[in-house]
Amino acid sequence: MRLSEFSNTAIPKIEAEMKDILLSAKQAHDTSLYDMLSYHLGWSGEAVSRQSQGKRIRPLFLLLTTGAAGGDWETSVSAAATIELIHNFSLIHDDIEDNSEERRGRKTLWVRDSMPLALNAGDALFSISFLGLARLEKFHPNQTIVTAYSLIAETCLTLTQGQHMDISFENADNVTVDQYLEMISGKTGALLAASTELGAILAGVNPEVRQHYKSAGLNLGLAFQVVDDILGIWGDPQKTGKSASSDLLSRKKSLPILFGLSRSGKFSELWDQEITPSNVHILAGQLKIEGAYDYAKTIARQYTQTALDAIENANPGGIYAEAFDELVRSLTQRDY
Amino acid sequence: MRLSEFSNTAIPKIEAEMKDILLSAKQAHDTSLYDMLSYHLGWSGEAVSRQSQGKRIRPLFLLLTTGAAGGDWETSVSAAATIELIHNFSLIHDDIEDNSEERRGRKTLWVRDSMPLALNAGDALFSISFLGLARLEKFHPNQTIVTAYSLIAETCLTLTQGQHMDISFENADNVTVDQYLEMISGKTGALLAASTELGAILAGVNPEVRQHYKSAGLNLGLAFQVVDDILGIWGDPQKTGKSASSDLLSRKKSLPILFGLSRSGKFSELWDQEITPSNVHILAGQLKIEGAYDYAKTIARQYTQTALDAIENANPGGIYAEAFDELVRSLTQRDY
Repeated sequence: MRLSEFSNTAIPKIEAEMKDILLSAKQAHDTSLYDMLSYHLGWSGEAVSRQSQGKRIRPLFLLLTTGAAGGDWETSVSAAATIELIHNFSLIHDDIEDNSEERRGRKTLWVRDSMPLALNAGDALFSISFLGLARLEKFHPNQTIVTAYSLIAETCLTLTQGQHMDISFENADNVTVDQYLEMISGKTGALLAASTELGAILAGVNPEVRQHYKSAGLNLGLAFQVVDDILGIWGDPQKTGKSASSDLLSRKKSLPILFGLSRSGKFSELWDQEITPSNVHILAGQLKIEGAYDYAKTIARQYTQTALDAIENANPGGIYAEAFDELVRSLTQRDY
Repeated sequence: MRLSEFSNTAIPKIEAEMKDILLSAKQAHDTSLYDMLSYHLGWSGEAVSRQSQGKRIRPLFLLLTTGAAGGDWETSVSAAATIELIHNFSLIHDDIEDNSEERRGRKTLWVRDSMPLALNAGDALFSISFLGLARLEKFHPNQTIVTAYSLIAETCLTLTQGQHMDISFENADNVTVDQYLEMISGKTGALLAASTELGAILAGVNPEVRQHYKSAGLNLGLAFQVVDDILGIWGDPQKTGKSASSDLLSRKKSLPILFGLSRSGKFSELWDQEITPSNVHILAGQLKIEGAYDYAKTIARQYTQTALDAIENANPGGIYAEAFDELVRSLTQRDY
C-alpha cells in the first residue's frame, strides 16, 4: 500500500480519535479551555487549514510500525492520538519558553489567549494525553497499558531534559558538539523513538525487534534534525520557506555552527561580530570552508545509516511495509 | 496511634520515596534540572528548613486512608510520593501563572532560574510523578496500576480546569458563587479527593467505600478553602501570618466577596473604589453586615458535615483510625 493511500484512511481516524479523547475530557459547561486546545490543534479559529494541523508524522509512524511489525494498526489508534497530543502539549509550552509568536502561519496560543492561560492549557493537554492511553484497554491487556504509560512518561521526561539543555545553551559560552547531539536526542529524537517503539509494542513483537524499531525512530529523528540544521544555513530559501542562512541570523547554536566555533578559526571571529542580512553569506561561506557542511553531512548520513540498519534488523513486512518505507524516505531524502 | 507518631514514621519514608523517584529519573550528567527540582521541593538551596518542604498533608492523607481502610500503608508509599510530586509540579506552574515571587518564605523557581527553565522543570516534574506510579507494581496488580494512572491523569485535568477558571475570574465582571465553588472543587478539592480515593483503592476496598473516601477528601478540601477565604478577610493577622483583610487588599474574588458583590449593596459600591490599608476595615465590616461572614461559615460547615458523614459511611478502623481522625480535625477545626 502507498503512503498516500494509508494516510487518507488513517489520518481521519487519528483526528477523530484525538477529538474524541478531548470531548470525553470536556466538562459540559467548560468551553473556553477546549476552544483554546481546538485552536492550537488546528481544528478551529482563524486561518484553519490542513497546514495548521501539522503533518501528523509521529502518529503515522506509530500506526505503520504496528502494521509493518505484524499487528493490527486499528488497535493502535488511541496510542497514535496520544503521541500527537503529547507533541502538541510540548509545542504550546515551547512557544512560551522560546517567546515564539507564530506557529504554522498562525498566532501561538499564548499570544492569542495570554501566557497564564496557555501554560495551563498545555498542562490540561498533557493530562488529556495520558487519558488517551486508558482507551487502549479495548484491545490490549493491562500489562501492555502499564508499559505504555511508563514509556510515555519516560519520553516526556527525556523531552524536557532535551528542552532544558536547549534553553540553557542560549546563554552558555561553551556548548560542545556532544552536548548538542544529546540535546537533540531528547528534543527531536525521543518522541519519534517512542512512536516506533510503542507501535511495535502494540504489535506484540519481542524485545529485540522492539529495540530495533525504537532505534529506527530515534536515529531518523536525529538525521532529520541535522539535515534541518544544514538547511538552516545553506538551504534554498525558496524550498525551506525561511530567509537565507536564517540560523546564522538568529544565532542559533546548531550543529554546523558549534562545529565552526570549536575550530576557533575565522568563522569563530566573524561570529563574535554583528551578523546582518548583508554579511551573512560571508559567514555561511566561511563555515563551509572550515568543513562544517561536510561534517554535518557525514553526521546526518551516519544517523540515516544507523536508522536504515535498525529497520533492516526489524524487518518490516506485509502490506504496510511499502508505506512505512515511503515515510522513512520522506524524512531522509530531502535535498541539501 | 497518634498523628504525630504516624507522621514521624511516615514522612521520612515519603521523602525518601520522592527522592528515589527523582534519582531514578536523573541522567548521570544532568545536574542543573535536578538541582532546580530539589530546590523547589525544599531539599536544597537557600533557606532550607522543614517549613520549606510544606506540610505533606496529601501524602499523609493517602497513607492514613490506606491504613484506616484496612490496607498496608507501606504498599502505598509510591502513590503518596506521586501525589506530593503532582502537587509540587502544579505549584511551580501556578507561581508562573500568578506571577508570585515567593513561596514558603523563599524565591519561587521562576524568579530564581528564569521563567522558561521553570516552566520546563514543572513539565519534567509532571513526567516524573507518573513514573512514581509504575513503582506500585512491587505490591499491586496491573489492573490497580492502570486505575491509578487514569485517576491521576483525570485529577490533573480537573486541577487545570479549576486553574483555568481561577485565571479567567481575574478579568471577569460577573463571577457567580456557583462558578466559584466549581473552581475550588477543581483547584483545591481534586487533589485531596484523589489522595483519599487512591489510598482507598490501594487498600482494596469496594466501589462504595472508595466513593465515600473520595467524597471525604473532596469536601474536606472545599471546607478548608472556604475557611481560608474567611480568614483572608476576618482572620487574626497574628495567626494567619498575613496582613489584615489581605484578600480585600489584593482584590481576590473569594467566596465572601462574591457573595457581597451579588448583593449589589453598599459593599459592592465600596469595592468599586480604591481599597487601602486605611479603609479596608470598613469594607470588612460592611461585608459582615451584609451577611457574607455568616454565609461563608454556613457553607464551610455544610462541606465539613458532608465530609464527616462520608467518613462515617467509609467507617475507618484499626490502629490508624485515630491518626486519620486527627488529620481530619487539623483541617476542619481552625479558629474563625
